[in-house]
Amino acid sequence: MARDVWIGLDLGGTALKAGAVSPRGRLLAWREELVDDQAPRAVAARMARVVRSLQGKAGGRLRGVGVGVPGPIDVARGVVTSAPNMPGWRDVPIARWVARATGVPAVIENDANAAALGECWVGAGRGRRSVVLYTLGTGIGGGIVLDGKLWHGAKGGAGELGHVPVEPDGRRCPCGARGCIEAYASARAVVKRFRELRAVRRSRIGGRDAKEICDAARKGDPLARSVVQEAGRYLGLAVAGVVNTLNPEVVILGGGMSAAGGVILSPVRAAVRAHALPLMRKGLRIVSARLGNAAGAIGAAGCALNAFAISAS
Amino acid sequence: MARDVWIGLDLGGTALKAGAVSPRGRLLAWREELVDDQAPRAVAARMARVVRSLQGKAGGRLRGVGVGVPGPIDVARGVVTSAPNMPGWRDVPIARWVARATGVPAVIENDANAAALGECWVGAGRGRRSVVLYTLGTGIGGGIVLDGKLWHGAKGGAGELGHVPVEPDGRRCPCGARGCIEAYASARAVVKRFRELRAVRRSRIGGRDAKEICDAARKGDPLARSVVQEAGRYLGLAVAGVVNTLNPEVVILGGGMSAAGGVILSPVRAAVRAHALPLMRKGLRIVSARLGNAAGAIGAAGCALNAFAISAS
Repeated sequence: MARDVWIGLDLGGTALKAGAVSPRGRLLAWREELVDDQAPRAVAARMARVVRSLQGKAGGRLRGVGVGVPGPIDVARGVVTSAPNMPGWRDVPIARWVARATGVPAVIENDANAAALGECWVGAGRGRRSVVLYTLGTGIGGGIVLDGKLWHGAKGGAGELGHVPVEPDGRRCPCGARGCIEAYASARAVVKRFRELRAVRRSRIGGRDAKEICDAARKGDPLARSVVQEAGRYLGLAVAGVVNTLNPEVVILGGGMSAAGGVILSPVRAAVRAHALPLMRKGLRIVSARLGNAAGAIGAAGCALNAFAISAS
Repeated sequence: MARDVWIGLDLGGTALKAGAVSPRGRLLAWREELVDDQAPRAVAARMARVVRSLQGKAGGRLRGVGVGVPGPIDVARGVVTSAPNMPGWRDVPIARWVARATGVPAVIENDANAAALGECWVGAGRGRRSVVLYTLGTGIGGGIVLDGKLWHGAKGGAGELGHVPVEPDGRRCPCGARGCIEAYASARAVVKRFRELRAVRRSRIGGRDAKEICDAARKGDPLARSVVQEAGRYLGLAVAGVVNTLNPEVVILGGGMSAAGGVILSPVRAAVRAHALPLMRKGLRIVSARLGNAAGAIGAAGCALNAFAISAS
């Protein structure tokens, strides 16, 4: 009998990442394409093509498709409510379109939520039931897995961890509010801060992007180091608040900023030691993500498996 | 056939509150006693007496007892892990003792969690599935109901909403950390702040306790008002963070400070408008608790009902 295969898609503003995985979350085939036409129908057609191509590479029996999208979703209706960075995406029934075009059931999920489920399933949160993921990219996203299941909240918006306030009347965030953790610990915020300080302090690097800054920080560049550590101290306050609120087993840092490794993890852990209650720190792990940019696609495949697998395969 | 009755107990540092409720959460009988002897065995014996007394008053068929305790618990084992303000309470199997003494099954719950469940069941969160309760007492406690069930976290510590940081390097909290919301919006913090400012500003009142300050704030005393509003602005930051994290349907403010009514609710709502994302604010209600000091006992009875009622009565 052919083995079961699940396909996960991770739609971003510029790229579509796709993975075929086994029922145990092993990556069998991978594909990544640029998304030149962001119109919903064009994206759906591209998704169907990518699914067929992956299906060919992975073999086996395709059981279902999970689609991670960059915006809030209505899980029950399978509809993308909106996608802030993708024009024309409003109440798009992408799950139905993909299912019709591929002939297998499809389910949608928010991209950061999908990544959280992926890390919980076969990544840094493997074997844990309650996991909080921060995606430290251009902005900060997040996903919350409680008792093995994604928590979506009343309107599907839960897990917007980038907009937890950490400084009253603090820096302005792209969301319009002041003092969000996104204004302190996102890649965009760190680059901005580095360049501000670069004007008055020495560094071997120019601060082209977060990757350059994180690499320099790991190699000991004092300015890069102090900027990343400052971001980590603020992030630690936000993490401590979430830890005291939810008492998770693991907090995972993913996205571009997690490339700083220990330089960002250390101040986060120190802040959590100082601010989280002893009971919450017992057994708590704060670690870097493991699946890199495949987390979203693998997690989306996991969402499909959770939704449609009737028996364990 | 005799109607079913559930009894909830709410153990505090000085008092034991107890209520007999119907399967729909209606309060049938009430009893409150001082706890002079805090030793675990003495408390268990008193609980059994109070249960028998309430049973006599309420009539019906007693189905089970829920016990709310002021400290972290191990739900699965029915054990009070510790109770910071009650000497000798370490790994106390109070549920088993009460069950043995009363002849009906018993279950335990953290007191703030029990109050959250009570408010969700028949109070300010009635009919809602995801509810966050803040108990603004001497300290700040909390409880989180997700999808109709209490969220306990990995070690039973979830819902410690008083220790979410709102000000980096801020005021010292009794927990030892700096900048916790408890150091800004608890009854203790508000009384302290009022007295500090009373030394340099005019007020008709002396700031005896939080009740006096909240009453004066509602009646327009400028100093009392500004102190309560400041507490509300900080509390609003913490609430906004929890709203962006969990996307609940209702946030309920209970405990002594909620007596300030609109004077504290208004700045909380304003901060949430400024800091929570639009999707999270859609349909969100931020309201005062309704059950007063009966929330804990009613909620504890609800915990027993959830644990032991096999069919809807």
